[in-house]
Amino acid sequence: MSKRLVVIGGVAAGMSAAAKAKRTDPELEVIAFEKSHYVSYGACGLPYYLAGWIDDVEKLVARTPEKFKQQGVTALVRHEVVEVDYEGRRVKVANLNEGREFWQPFDHLVISTGARPLLPRIDGIHQPGVFTLRQLEDGQALLSALHRSRRAVIVGAGYVGLEVAEAFRARGKQVTIVELAERVMPAADPEVSAIVREELSRNGVQVVTGTEVESFTGLSRVQAVQTSAFEIPADLVLLATGIRPNVKLATSIGVQTGPTGAIAVDEQLRTNLEGVWAAGDVAESTHLITGNPYWMPLGDVANKHGRTAGTVIGGGRASFKGVVGSSITKIFDLAVALTGLGESAAKEAGFDAKSVWIKSADRAHYYPEPHPFYVKLVYEAASGRLLGAQMVGHRNDALRIDVIAALLHRGGTIEDLRALDLAYAPPFSPVWDPLLVAANQAR
Amino acid sequence: MSKRLVVIGGVAAGMSAAAKAKRTDPELEVIAFEKSHYVSYGACGLPYYLAGWIDDVEKLVARTPEKFKQQGVTALVRHEVVEVDYEGRRVKVANLNEGREFWQPFDHLVISTGARPLLPRIDGIHQPGVFTLRQLEDGQALLSALHRSRRAVIVGAGYVGLEVAEAFRARGKQVTIVELAERVMPAADPEVSAIVREELSRNGVQVVTGTEVESFTGLSRVQAVQTSAFEIPADLVLLATGIRPNVKLATSIGVQTGPTGAIAVDEQLRTNLEGVWAAGDVAESTHLITGNPYWMPLGDVANKHGRTAGTVIGGGRASFKGVVGSSITKIFDLAVALTGLGESAAKEAGFDAKSVWIKSADRAHYYPEPHPFYVKLVYEAASGRLLGAQMVGHRNDALRIDVIAALLHRGGTIEDLRALDLAYAPPFSPVWDPLLVAANQAR
Repeated sequence: MSKRLVVIGGVAAGMSAAAKAKRTDPELEVIAFEKSHYVSYGACGLPYYLAGWIDDVEKLVARTPEKFKQQGVTALVRHEVVEVDYEGRRVKVANLNEGREFWQPFDHLVISTGARPLLPRIDGIHQPGVFTLRQLEDGQALLSALHRSRRAVIVGAGYVGLEVAEAFRARGKQVTIVELAERVMPAADPEVSAIVREELSRNGVQVVTGTEVESFTGLSRVQAVQTSAFEIPADLVLLATGIRPNVKLATSIGVQTGPTGAIAVDEQLRTNLEGVWAAGDVAESTHLITGNPYWMPLGDVANKHGRTAGTVIGGGRASFKGVVGSSITKIFDLAVALTGLGESAAKEAGFDAKSVWIKSADRAHYYPEPHPFYVKLVYEAASGRLLGAQMVGHRNDALRIDVIAALLHRGGTIEDLRALDLAYAPPFSPVWDPLLVAANQAR
Repeated sequence: MSKRLVVIGGVAAGMSAAAKAKRTDPELEVIAFEKSHYVSYGACGLPYYLAGWIDDVEKLVARTPEKFKQQGVTALVRHEVVEVDYEGRRVKVANLNEGREFWQPFDHLVISTGARPLLPRIDGIHQPGVFTLRQLEDGQALLSALHRSRRAVIVGAGYVGLEVAEAFRARGKQVTIVELAERVMPAADPEVSAIVREELSRNGVQVVTGTEVESFTGLSRVQAVQTSAFEIPADLVLLATGIRPNVKLATSIGVQTGPTGAIAVDEQLRTNLEGVWAAGDVAESTHLITGNPYWMPLGDVANKHGRTAGTVIGGGRASFKGVVGSSITKIFDLAVALTGLGESAAKEAGFDAKSVWIKSADRAHYYPEPHPFYVKLVYEAASGRLLGAQMVGHRNDALRIDVIAALLHRGGTIEDLRALDLAYAPPFSPVWDPLLVAANQAR
């Protein structure tokens, strides 16, 4: 008799695992349960939906349940797994549309329950007009409120907060970002934060850093954001203060989490329980620079997790070694890209880290419409081993980050970078590529 | 007493060597002789000057003789070195402005005499209206003629021919490219050539391949290009049929050339003669995939050659290990990028080469204004070792080629590529980066 795979959570990792397992072993029965209305969607597209650049939230869906059906994968939306009976190899599923529950047996279980917004302790956080942004439904609700709003406050200047700030400005709204840390994009080094902050100002986003929100006030709905020093009028608030992995269901059956709080997995995405995998935002990865567990809740990592788990469950061979921490984000006309460790993160991790920061350009000095291109390289003082890089460029130029990512995977040094034969033509790069300029200046 | 460095040819490699030698050893006397009117220019910018995107050819000059003077480097234009007396450690220099010659002693000699257009044996090649494009003066003469022309024929569909075709179209001219090979951009694999050809057609460039030019005919100046099959009316012809290294001066004193016809050098750019360096388009590099000498006459390589030679001459330590053959070129809205070996080149080099060719996109499926992105990977069948890659994208996306270049430098495999943590966000990449899609499909 054929085996059955049950997947809990049908977004990126879950549906990747489901589809890949079925392709690898066509005999496998595959059922995925998703509590929201949608499976297989790109939540990272929500800011662009809010901006009005994508007219229908359903366009963020990569594959519908009908498409999965054609591939032999059952994907049930509005079905929440509320309990796992690990000994009995079954899960209890609540059909949210019909209000009934049933038990679903499994042989293999993938836990891909994702992450949820972290809600800081702020008075008035639950009143109308205060939003989070995680699922497609969140985006729909926020957009609907946005149309009726004039003044928006975003709490948190990380990726989501910054991307949504741009979206709100694209809708012509007044936008203020309030950030607890001393600078925007605290995941980047201060040089990068400073450039991002300028770009925000240039595009009419008010930025307040080093400031804690004390409460949200209003009568029937939010009307102001209160800090210790002042009040910001607001008819809409987005909380973009981070996320946490949804590990509760997993830990309820004894699945172990790691130091990051997400589920600990091996290179095949196996948990400590036989037959139970974890993938996507709920699971850890290994950071290949530090060798430590690292939580990287991003869509591309989730897809890799899912594909790896699915292959292994289907009887194939695959492994996911880890991440180096690469990311890129669009902030108005800028692209900001990071990989590896920032300078302070590298020092905290015990490296004797040095850095170089250069300003170059995205094309030959004579080619029209040049834009600045900034590169920071972080490296080990004695060996020259690269530890990380940060870049700010115009649009896709910042994909240069991937060159450093490739070197980081293989323990590359400043000397290795300096020797690279990078492609050159005047529309694409100065004759000395910005990466080589940085490498040449590293001492 | 301080030593003296004489540099023959003051464009990219020569002036890089001169400046770097002086910076490394401020005691060194440095004199560069350049026979044209300009030093330190980016000839690779000439197509964009022809297109009208750069209004003054002098903008292609990175540093003037006056700037070099401030750095303590003497750069003399319109000075041609016509003879080298190696035993006597001196060169004979013709001052082309004043029509007189003098001897200039040296301790170190850098030969950076560059390359010249290869003129095929075609009847009527020397008549007015037939141009080549190599130096800034060539660009000025061609542009002047272009303004009086309506119908241009470009012989040769390599980088220069294609870039100039775009420039001529930007000026509203009728353009026909005639290429001897069966396809345009013969340095790329056929899949890439086909896409380039479509882009040329879409932009109104006539393309004739597999066709040999037999003669240029006309009365007082060129009026038509004759092939065995037909005649193409033309009032302007650009010969873009390749270049050859200017080795004559070097070989006259016994400097050895390698199998490519360019000067053989070691990792410090030394020739076989003590005290004599060669750098830039006149010198070979090592191809790091094949291990063989390779001629790569491009501006970025020339700058690296010059910097390395200059450092060594100044008493510093530097080496240039070689190239992997990276290049990129803009063809209207496309960017075409190559690195390593093409599929047939890999087979010719003795590799048991396989390849994968995929069509992906430059952003998430839902993000507005997507463009196709094509990737070809060439790799060794048994080991999966990467041998090369070719990409076609929209504008700067094709800088992704540099990720493969980085892997090629370190003997990376398809498996290494598959494991890379590449930066993802919807405006920049699908959730599976095109490079990963290609790697996942490689068998």
